[in-house]
Amino acid sequence: MSAAHPVKCSSLPFASVNQDRMKRYEKFADEIAELIRTGVLGPGEKVPSVRHASRTYGVSPSTVFQAYYLLEDRGLIQARARSGYFVREHAKRPLHEPELTAHAAQTTEVDVSELVFSVLASLKDPHTVPFGSAFPSPDLFPLPRLAKSMAHALRRLSPHEIIADMTAGNADLRRQIALRYMVSGVMLPMEELVISNGAMEALNLCLQCVTQPGDLVAVESPTFYACLQVLERLQLKAVEIPVHPREGIDLGALSESLKQLPIKACWFMSSLQNPLGASMSEEKKQALYELLVEHQVPLIEDDVYAELYFGSHPPKPVKSFDREGLVMHCSSFSKSLAPGYRIGWVAGGRYAEQIARLKLMTTISPSVPAQAALADYLQHGGYDRHLRKLRHALEMQQSAMLASAARHFPANTRVTRPSGGYFLWFEFPERLDSLQLLRLALAQGISLAPGPIFSASQGFRHCARLNYGHPWNPSSEQAMEVLGRLVAGLL
Amino acid sequence: MSAAHPVKCSSLPFASVNQDRMKRYEKFADEIAELIRTGVLGPGEKVPSVRHASRTYGVSPSTVFQAYYLLEDRGLIQARARSGYFVREHAKRPLHEPELTAHAAQTTEVDVSELVFSVLASLKDPHTVPFGSAFPSPDLFPLPRLAKSMAHALRRLSPHEIIADMTAGNADLRRQIALRYMVSGVMLPMEELVISNGAMEALNLCLQCVTQPGDLVAVESPTFYACLQVLERLQLKAVEIPVHPREGIDLGALSESLKQLPIKACWFMSSLQNPLGASMSEEKKQALYELLVEHQVPLIEDDVYAELYFGSHPPKPVKSFDREGLVMHCSSFSKSLAPGYRIGWVAGGRYAEQIARLKLMTTISPSVPAQAALADYLQHGGYDRHLRKLRHALEMQQSAMLASAARHFPANTRVTRPSGGYFLWFEFPERLDSLQLLRLALAQGISLAPGPIFSASQGFRHCARLNYGHPWNPSSEQAMEVLGRLVAGLL
Repeated sequence: MSAAHPVKCSSLPFASVNQDRMKRYEKFADEIAELIRTGVLGPGEKVPSVRHASRTYGVSPSTVFQAYYLLEDRGLIQARARSGYFVREHAKRPLHEPELTAHAAQTTEVDVSELVFSVLASLKDPHTVPFGSAFPSPDLFPLPRLAKSMAHALRRLSPHEIIADMTAGNADLRRQIALRYMVSGVMLPMEELVISNGAMEALNLCLQCVTQPGDLVAVESPTFYACLQVLERLQLKAVEIPVHPREGIDLGALSESLKQLPIKACWFMSSLQNPLGASMSEEKKQALYELLVEHQVPLIEDDVYAELYFGSHPPKPVKSFDREGLVMHCSSFSKSLAPGYRIGWVAGGRYAEQIARLKLMTTISPSVPAQAALADYLQHGGYDRHLRKLRHALEMQQSAMLASAARHFPANTRVTRPSGGYFLWFEFPERLDSLQLLRLALAQGISLAPGPIFSASQGFRHCARLNYGHPWNPSSEQAMEVLGRLVAGLL
Repeated sequence: MSAAHPVKCSSLPFASVNQDRMKRYEKFADEIAELIRTGVLGPGEKVPSVRHASRTYGVSPSTVFQAYYLLEDRGLIQARARSGYFVREHAKRPLHEPELTAHAAQTTEVDVSELVFSVLASLKDPHTVPFGSAFPSPDLFPLPRLAKSMAHALRRLSPHEIIADMTAGNADLRRQIALRYMVSGVMLPMEELVISNGAMEALNLCLQCVTQPGDLVAVESPTFYACLQVLERLQLKAVEIPVHPREGIDLGALSESLKQLPIKACWFMSSLQNPLGASMSEEKKQALYELLVEHQVPLIEDDVYAELYFGSHPPKPVKSFDREGLVMHCSSFSKSLAPGYRIGWVAGGRYAEQIARLKLMTTISPSVPAQAALADYLQHGGYDRHLRKLRHALEMQQSAMLASAARHFPANTRVTRPSGGYFLWFEFPERLDSLQLLRLALAQGISLAPGPIFSASQGFRHCARLNYGHPWNPSSEQAMEVLGRLVAGLL
């Protein structure tokens, strides 16, 4: 940015601060939403009347009204004339949640890339119903507004900044990211931030910083398949730690593995884990951190879905507890704002300088115009407004898919109920083969992500990840019906 | 690109074809320029009269006139009233060229990153005279026109293309690059092209595809310092092959090394080599290719300066001889069009698919908007017109720096006379220490790139690379004078 145009950075943090100092009715709505999500309030059940709620919870009637309007807007409850509010009926016969995954307690040479690539190649056809996709619908993103920010940024970017931004990263963007950390309670010196080509590059660089070929890395089970591919590429071995579908990593199992094995790094998603959608509680995140400090094992925290939480409480990262610079916190704008711009970052803790150098030796820099466009958008584009819309859309779509699954899938199917993101994880009876299901589904124009690509030991054969990141429409509903029939046929 | 806007790809290839079918006067001008460059026609000497030239070389007088106008335009000759044309006086006392570098005939563990990073950090100050810079002046690039292409491209890019382009790369961009290869005589199936985050990522991916830690890689001596950093990062060993400052790699030495050592790959710049500026002849490039075929050793051809040739003959890459898919030809738009956009590519030969997969596992994709902007520019922006202007500017600036060096540097200084690019390589008497020179120069607000960063064995201590990629002005001239005094003081 030229000196003639001083930075306007007020819009973002204050918007977020307001959100942080959440309104009373939003808090109350969140509490009710949690009761619905966890099944305390079942489909079709009446939510407390305004009078009752006001008296019981000590909030004003207008707060309750506002909260119920919000919940109606989020698609969780609906009004019935002269009867009050009811939990929406869309999950008449809700499916159960899966349980904690089993613990293998061994190290695994990773050899999944071929399988992953062949599955991913099969998912590319744009004419299939994209339940197997890794991305939410690009229609959910403010692409025209981003284009405006790009034009604005390119007008202001001096030729010499284009060169300078290649080594250091765009200063405005780094400041905006640091401000977002600050607002979410993480005080971060800007020097810790390295801008990368999406989170994927950040994760790669972090792993290279702290490992040598042959080393052991603890990962979740199931985990994001690209994590396994990276391990394989770098000739690292996986130690698979079981994950509870709601509470996240099994800390007991992790503690055992850390005691018994020379683990060099952990690569975890502490919030909205892919594929399970699990989020650890803050207490558990802190306990995880203390465990890692005890063993002096660095954490690569992959937090790319953090902005897609439902409700009004942004999840805190493990990074927020990091006294010692042991956590490398990786994220990006790819899932929340700007797919294809390929801008991510890492708050690299004690490894920041080493990560920056490694980046200079591999790709030098992410695209400078893309960095400048995002910096402009973060200052002027209304990111928080967009995020609220996006979260609402995803929450509605999750409800729709859950309800559809309950209608069409066999009753002994289990499914997660994540509090954000755009993935559901389905656990079918053990004898189902999800790779076979994928073949049959593709023949019917439907994609899905089969369980074995999420596991170093190629477990989860009877599981599949389905993407609800696309607006729900009759063909989604029909696709669920077809899938349900295919699953039943295979059992 | 949406179906409603069919691709217009006619502008580029035909412009280039015209340039390829070079006009007679351009050819003649090139021949005279070569005589001047190689010193056959010395500064102040008269070039053949129009009548004489027309008769001797069998060209029409108007062809000679046009050629001389062009050479005048390129700053190589000047008219004197009623006396005809003379070679410009700017190099009264031309410095000699350096000779072939010595052959070490050994393998070297690479350990230069610290040195390179500390030198590069010292060059960052924007207030120094940027002789040490790796980039030409960003003012030489059509950045406003690129911004227009960006706006145009973002209006046309559909949300779904943004996702699709991440795995395959922008189809228009790949087609435009393939067309440019075709025009320069390389028939390339589009499938061989992988779009990367600049050439640096392409080079990294190629090297990872064909080596394992501990392997030997043949590199030039001196070579581009980032090549050494990449070798060090991947724990590869360098076999340094001497380079002739005009003719490029010593094929005899390479042949010996290939016979004696288990070299797994070569990383060479066959045209306008950095830092020497050497370009191999086509015959020599073919001989190099046959040598590599004989040993079945793949070539990673770093060709990022290829578009910056002076005169009218684009240099052919070794890739143009590649029958067996043994050459990975890497290039980018960073030096010729769009610094900071970070768009490069590799024509990966038999390794293309493996390279594409490796890219998906490391950065996924370069920025999609940047790809689309360049595709639009290549179709509509006038790339060839821009390149002609850029080449003329660089050629003029080279003359100016050479002349200035002749005025201010000790007479026993040697300097290259590259036929393109924006670097000169200076060889001072052996007892000069260029790291010391750098320290003294920085204190005077002048940067330079000292010899040892270009060598795995940290040779070339008495050498330095100077960048003439910035418009020549009084402060450049003054900086050369100061440098000359510092050099003299150190001797």
